[in-house]
Amino acid sequence: RYCYERNLAVNPQGGNTGLVGGSVPVFDEIILSTILMNRIISFDKVSGILVCQAGCILEKLNEYLEEQGFIMPLDLGAKGSCHIGGNVATNAGGLRLLRYGSLRGTVLGLEVVLADGSALDCLTSLRKDNTGYDLKQLFIGSEGTLGVITAVSILCPQKPKAVNLAFLGCQSFAKVLETFTTCRAMLGEILSACEFMDEKCMELVERHLKLSSPVTGSPFYVLIETSGSNSTHDEEKLNNFLEQAMTSGLVTDGTVAMDDKKIKASTWFIWISLIHQMLWSLRERITEALTHDGYVYKYDISLPVEKLYDLVTDVRARLGQSAKNVVGYGHLGDGNLHLNITAESYSCSLLDAIEPFVYEWTASYNGSISAEHGLGFKKKQFIQYSKPKEAVFLMQRFKAMLDPKGILNPYKTLPSSS
Amino acid sequence: RYCYERNLAVNPQGGNTGLVGGSVPVFDEIILSTILMNRIISFDKVSGILVCQAGCILEKLNEYLEEQGFIMPLDLGAKGSCHIGGNVATNAGGLRLLRYGSLRGTVLGLEVVLADGSALDCLTSLRKDNTGYDLKQLFIGSEGTLGVITAVSILCPQKPKAVNLAFLGCQSFAKVLETFTTCRAMLGEILSACEFMDEKCMELVERHLKLSSPVTGSPFYVLIETSGSNSTHDEEKLNNFLEQAMTSGLVTDGTVAMDDKKIKASTWFIWISLIHQMLWSLRERITEALTHDGYVYKYDISLPVEKLYDLVTDVRARLGQSAKNVVGYGHLGDGNLHLNITAESYSCSLLDAIEPFVYEWTASYNGSISAEHGLGFKKKQFIQYSKPKEAVFLMQRFKAMLDPKGILNPYKTLPSSS
Repeated sequence: RYCYERNLAVNPQGGNTGLVGGSVPVFDEIILSTILMNRIISFDKVSGILVCQAGCILEKLNEYLEEQGFIMPLDLGAKGSCHIGGNVATNAGGLRLLRYGSLRGTVLGLEVVLADGSALDCLTSLRKDNTGYDLKQLFIGSEGTLGVITAVSILCPQKPKAVNLAFLGCQSFAKVLETFTTCRAMLGEILSACEFMDEKCMELVERHLKLSSPVTGSPFYVLIETSGSNSTHDEEKLNNFLEQAMTSGLVTDGTVAMDDKKIKASTWFIWISLIHQMLWSLRERITEALTHDGYVYKYDISLPVEKLYDLVTDVRARLGQSAKNVVGYGHLGDGNLHLNITAESYSCSLLDAIEPFVYEWTASYNGSISAEHGLGFKKKQFIQYSKPKEAVFLMQRFKAMLDPKGILNPYKTLPSSS
Repeated sequence: RYCYERNLAVNPQGGNTGLVGGSVPVFDEIILSTILMNRIISFDKVSGILVCQAGCILEKLNEYLEEQGFIMPLDLGAKGSCHIGGNVATNAGGLRLLRYGSLRGTVLGLEVVLADGSALDCLTSLRKDNTGYDLKQLFIGSEGTLGVITAVSILCPQKPKAVNLAFLGCQSFAKVLETFTTCRAMLGEILSACEFMDEKCMELVERHLKLSSPVTGSPFYVLIETSGSNSTHDEEKLNNFLEQAMTSGLVTDGTVAMDDKKIKASTWFIWISLIHQMLWSLRERITEALTHDGYVYKYDISLPVEKLYDLVTDVRARLGQSAKNVVGYGHLGDGNLHLNITAESYSCSLLDAIEPFVYEWTASYNGSISAEHGLGFKKKQFIQYSKPKEAVFLMQRFKAMLDPKGILNPYKTLPSSS
């Protein structure tokens, strides 16, 4: 309200872990930090519904829930510092989306402060509520440009009793795709993640972070996670799948970390959890390895899964020697590619070779130029590659209605109306 | 566009199966039928994404998908006549929500005709897309008052390989609740439905529809369905749960229909599918049985699951002899109660005894006065029991912005602005 009356611009900031500059002030905004709003308001064990303030750190929430036999429905690399308010404001995707769905389904309620300083209380804890329009949806994924999220109510799944991992090597992307459809069919309801990375990613993780992989020498790697309620059943399903994948030549090499309930020695549990951590870090720490490789051009693309890697191949061919490394990895199960290009330093000519080529390529297959990162400051002018102009115009009308003075996270998400 | 230029009001109508009068014209609206828009546009077996026109009948879509090894993520009693466009417009819940989540997570894209006759194309087929605001969410559940849905893109799960049912009798609602938490813990990822009904429902189904139940003489009944990818594993989980439920006295009687893969004779398959149908119809045909019992006052309430049946008990005590039957049933797993009251004929004094009592009771526990049915024409004036006035005011501003002439499904969902 103070800012509204004085026409001061506000930049909401949580963990500041975003990749498109959505939480970074551009010119003269006041940073509104949610860091002190870190209280858990309630958790109901019967329904699994958590209500908390926006500044709670994702990892802390997950730790709190694990003690009660539940987990957060989302997980991402930045979990140690990102805030739940920011996760919701950016509609974060991450590693558990394949299993538990997007925040649009799991977020049940929000409390939002509007541009005029008034609070909108939609913080209900009901799984179903069809009374009027679902206003909270407009704030999910709007990157703080329509209102500032101050509290969240979210449906949390039960903590799985058994978690198994398989890290596999494939000889081609076609085999990666076939591995995905086979494991989805054979693992069914216990499949909780299906991630992929190419050999360039593996090289960088090994070189810059000194991580070592138990599986080497393949052009592609697939990480498969199962989460279920019965370890014997889960292992049997996973073994059946692995046997099928190996005998049919989909997979040429691999390692498995089974969460075996039959061996109950606590040292074994510590060991298995370390192996899980080690396997996951090969995938999760790619972003970190890239920053050690030079200046990074980052793209977060949704495509039909069959086309996912063609973009990497085409960009690699197009850039040739002008780029240091062109790598592809991501959430295979969600059709979400992270394309990253590194160079010794930032260069305008390299950027011109990449953009708008990547966006045009993506648009030609009806993909999205931002699958889970949002548009923020860096990508707002490219929205037309993924949305028709009527849709952008309607978004601008919503923005004008909810924030007539344009003080909420200005210069973000939408192109300036003209 | 024709109607917009001539200020003619439009009432979109699909299967016309709604329970709150959302698809019934009130005064002088033109009925816009989606019945001829029944084409499947595409289905991709790798991603499981279906794109179709709004007038496709839910059951027909499910049959089409089953042939390809997939199913629709929603299922409801009216499936034989309701249209997918209407399902999305009303954000329909139904029997599979517990497992596959709400339409807000599974609907990936929409094509919508706006009040001025222009089409808004958000019909993308991507699992993830964070480019700008998610406009389609505003049309999901807005009951045709902001735009007319003409096509839908939706993510469909794989058809489960094994489906098992258990129909159980419980001696109290406390035991019903404990049965739910126990089965959720023990069945985990394969639990696909957890429904309940009281003995009054069973009486009416037996009396009016001549159905006979294999389980009788209990004050409450619980229907549990599992859907999974391995029948041996699923049966073992279900048997473990049933043993636990029986020995701990949660459940006093019950019958089980296992989808046993070991017996492959086709007659057995026919027989098991008939038993499934018979058990489900005890629950699904309650609505039909009620219409044979007299005039029906219908309520569709979301509450914290522990409070779910207290409302039925309180209403029954309050109405005494003035009602013929007061029954409670619904989606236990979602905290969604269907409270129905029958009488020989419609009576104003009975209505006055029920309303606003039911709404006030619901509001006192922060429940929703419409969990999945919407507000339509009949309940729009009661929205304030579930939404704060700032939220209703904001909804009215959205309506005014998107439909300035008020021609889209007028007199529905929102109270007249004043």
